Amino acid sequence: MHRLQASYRIRCTAAEIERRAAALAVEQSVEMPTAAIADQRILEHIVGRVESIEADGEAHFRVVLGLALDTTGLEAGQLMNMLFGNCSLQPEVELLDVELPPAALEGFGGPRFGIAGLRERCGVATRRPLSCSALKPQGSSPEALAALAGELAAAGIDIVKDDHGLADQVDAPFARRVVAVQRAIDAANRATGHRCVYAPSLGGGPRRLREQLRIAREAGVGMLMLAPMVSGLGALQELAEEGLPLLAHPALGGATRIAPPALIGKLFRLAGADAVIFPNHGGRFSYTPQTCRAIAEAARAPWGTLPAALPVPAGGMTPARVEEMVAFYGTDVMLLIGGALLEAGDLRGAAQAFVQRVHAAGEAR
Amino acid sequence: MHRLQASYRIRCTAAEIERRAAALAVEQSVEMPTAAIADQRILEHIVGRVESIEADGEAHFRVVLGLALDTTGLEAGQLMNMLFGNCSLQPEVELLDVELPPAALEGFGGPRFGIAGLRERCGVATRRPLSCSALKPQGSSPEALAALAGELAAAGIDIVKDDHGLADQVDAPFARRVVAVQRAIDAANRATGHRCVYAPSLGGGPRRLREQLRIAREAGVGMLMLAPMVSGLGALQELAEEGLPLLAHPALGGATRIAPPALIGKLFRLAGADAVIFPNHGGRFSYTPQTCRAIAEAARAPWGTLPAALPVPAGGMTPARVEEMVAFYGTDVMLLIGGALLEAGDLRGAAQAFVQRVHAAGEAR
Repeated sequence: MHRLQASYRIRCTAAEIERRAAALAVEQSVEMPTAAIADQRILEHIVGRVESIEADGEAHFRVVLGLALDTTGLEAGQLMNMLFGNCSLQPEVELLDVELPPAALEGFGGPRFGIAGLRERCGVATRRPLSCSALKPQGSSPEALAALAGELAAAGIDIVKDDHGLADQVDAPFARRVVAVQRAIDAANRATGHRCVYAPSLGGGPRRLREQLRIAREAGVGMLMLAPMVSGLGALQELAEEGLPLLAHPALGGATRIAPPALIGKLFRLAGADAVIFPNHGGRFSYTPQTCRAIAEAARAPWGTLPAALPVPAGGMTPARVEEMVAFYGTDVMLLIGGALLEAGDLRGAAQAFVQRVHAAGEAR
Repeated sequence: MHRLQASYRIRCTAAEIERRAAALAVEQSVEMPTAAIADQRILEHIVGRVESIEADGEAHFRVVLGLALDTTGLEAGQLMNMLFGNCSLQPEVELLDVELPPAALEGFGGPRFGIAGLRERCGVATRRPLSCSALKPQGSSPEALAALAGELAAAGIDIVKDDHGLADQVDAPFARRVVAVQRAIDAANRATGHRCVYAPSLGGGPRRLREQLRIAREAGVGMLMLAPMVSGLGALQELAEEGLPLLAHPALGGATRIAPPALIGKLFRLAGADAVIFPNHGGRFSYTPQTCRAIAEAARAPWGTLPAALPVPAGGMTPARVEEMVAFYGTDVMLLIGGALLEAGDLRGAAQAFVQRVHAAGEAR
C-alpha cells in the first residue's frame, strides 16, 4: 500500500512529542481512537503512521507522517484535507512539505504545459524569462480593460492576466470583459506579430466555473487563472484537464500554516498549475528572499515526470529590478509587473522598456 | 454605492498605522497606486477606504475598511478574495469581522433552512438540541459504513454525516457509499419511525461536485456536507440553491488569521451553511470557550433576514458532556459525537444513551 510523506513542524515539549505525533497521525487519517477499529486492514494500511521525529529548534519538532495515498483518492482537494484539514485548526501544527511516490504524482496530474509549454504558447524560442502584466484597476469597463490589454500586447508583454480582483462584477462582467480583452489582444498580435496570451481570472462554484470556462474557450483565450485557495485545488485539478495552461494565484493562501514552498511550489504544481504567482521579496509582502528562492526551486525541481512550473514573483516589480530578479531567479521565471507600468505617463513606452530589459536579461545569460 | 465593513487587526507602530491602513484599503480593492487611476468613479466608489483606526493592545490596531460591495459581485469566493485574498499573505494582518448591508446579505443568500428548517427536516417538534454522529473510519467498505449508519439511525441520532475524510476513495466510492448508507438509514427510519437525515461529504472540482450532487439527490439524501475552505465558498453558495440543507465542515479553515466567529459563524452562514461545525473547547483542539461561544453567537445572531445557522461543536464529545454543552450553548445547538460511540462496546446502547440525554437536556430548559 502506498504512502505519501507529510512533514510537519509541531510546537511541543519533548516529553509530549511522541504522543502528539501519534495523535496527529490519527487525526490526519481515521480521526477516531484506533482501539475502536476492528478492521485489521484499516489499522495497517489506512491509519497514519509516524515515520520520524526530530528536534527542530526550541520546543519544536519536525515530524514526518506516512499517510495512506488511498485516503486522497488522487483528488487534489481531498489531498489538502488529508494533509492539513483538521490540523489546520491546531495552531501548534504547521505543514512543511509533502513527498509522494512517482505513480501518485502522475495520478494527480501536474502541469500539462510547464515552462517549456508556456514558452511555446507565447512563441518564445529562446530560454529568456517571460513577461506578464495585469489588467487593472477593477471597476474599469470592459472597453477600458481591453484598451489596456491592447497596449500591453502591442508592447510585447508575453502574458496579460486579469487583476485577481476581476471576477464577474457589474462593472466588467466576465463574459463581456473576456471577449473584449481577447479581441484587443488578437488585434494587437495581428498588428505586431506578437503572441501575447490572455489569462482571465476564473472563480466561483461549479456552475459559474463551467460557464466561465465555456466563455473563455469560445473567446479563444490562451490561458486561465485561478486562485486555488479561493476556488479549491479540486477546481484547479479539473481545469488542468481542459487543454489550457493554468496560472495559479496565491490569494487566501497565506492564512493557513502551510510553508509557501510546499503550498505554492509543490501542491499548486501537483494539482496542475503551469505557472505559480507568489509575493516577491522586497515588495509589499513579507516573504524573505530565502522563501522566494525555495518556492521557485520547489516549482522547478525535478519531480517524477511532472514538468516544471514557472515561478512568477509578483509585487513591487519595476523595469529597474529586471536584472536583479533574473540574477536571483534565473531565466526560468515570469516577471509580473503591475502598478509600475500604470503609473508611468507613457504606458506603452514603459511596457516596451520592460519587455526589452526582459529580453536582454535572457540573452545576457 | 454600497460598502461592506471589514475589520482587521494589524500589528504596526503608531507612527505607521495610518499609512498601513491606507495601503490595506488599496490592496483589498484596486491593488495599484491610486495616483495612476484617472477614473473618478473608481476612485470614489471602488477604492477601499479607511473608516476607522483604533488602538487594540500593544503595537496593534483595529482598522475598519469600507470595501465596495460591487467588487464582490455577491459571489462568496470573490468576497473571501476581497476581504482577505492578498492580505492573507501579510502576516501582520488578521481579519476580525465583516458587516454587510441587508440587501447584500440577501444577495449572498444565507441559510435556506436554518435552525428551524433543520428541526423540521429531522421531525423535531420541540426546541431540543439535535444529535449528530459520523461514519468512521475511512477505509471501511460501503457495507460497513451503512451498517453503522443503520445502528445510529435506529438509536435515534438526528443527523448522520460522513466523516469529513470520506470522499471518493477506492474503499468506499462515493456512489456506492451514499446509496448504501441512505438505504440503511431509510430502513432504520421505517423500522423505528425515526427521521434520521444523512449528510454525505461532497468535494472536488466542478465536474465531480455536480456528479456527486446528482448521485446524492437520486439516493434521496436529506442534507449535504462540504468543507468550504477545501472546496471554495463559491461551491457552498451554489449548493445552497439546490434545495438541500447544508452542513459546513471547517477543514483547512486554519483560523489563526481569520477570526473563527467571522469565518465559521458569519461567512459560512452567509454563503448558505445551515449548520456549522467547529472545534469544541475541551477536546483535541485549542479554541477557548470564549471563541466557541462567539462562533455560536455569530451563527445564531439576528442578521438581516438571514435565518440562524445551527452551531455544531465537535471533538471530544461524550454522553457525559451533554448537559455541560447545553448549559454552555443553549438548546439551539447540534451535538456531534464520534469516537466515544465507536469506542463503546455496545454502540447502539451508547448511542441511545446519548440520544436520551440530548432529549432530556432539551426538556430540562
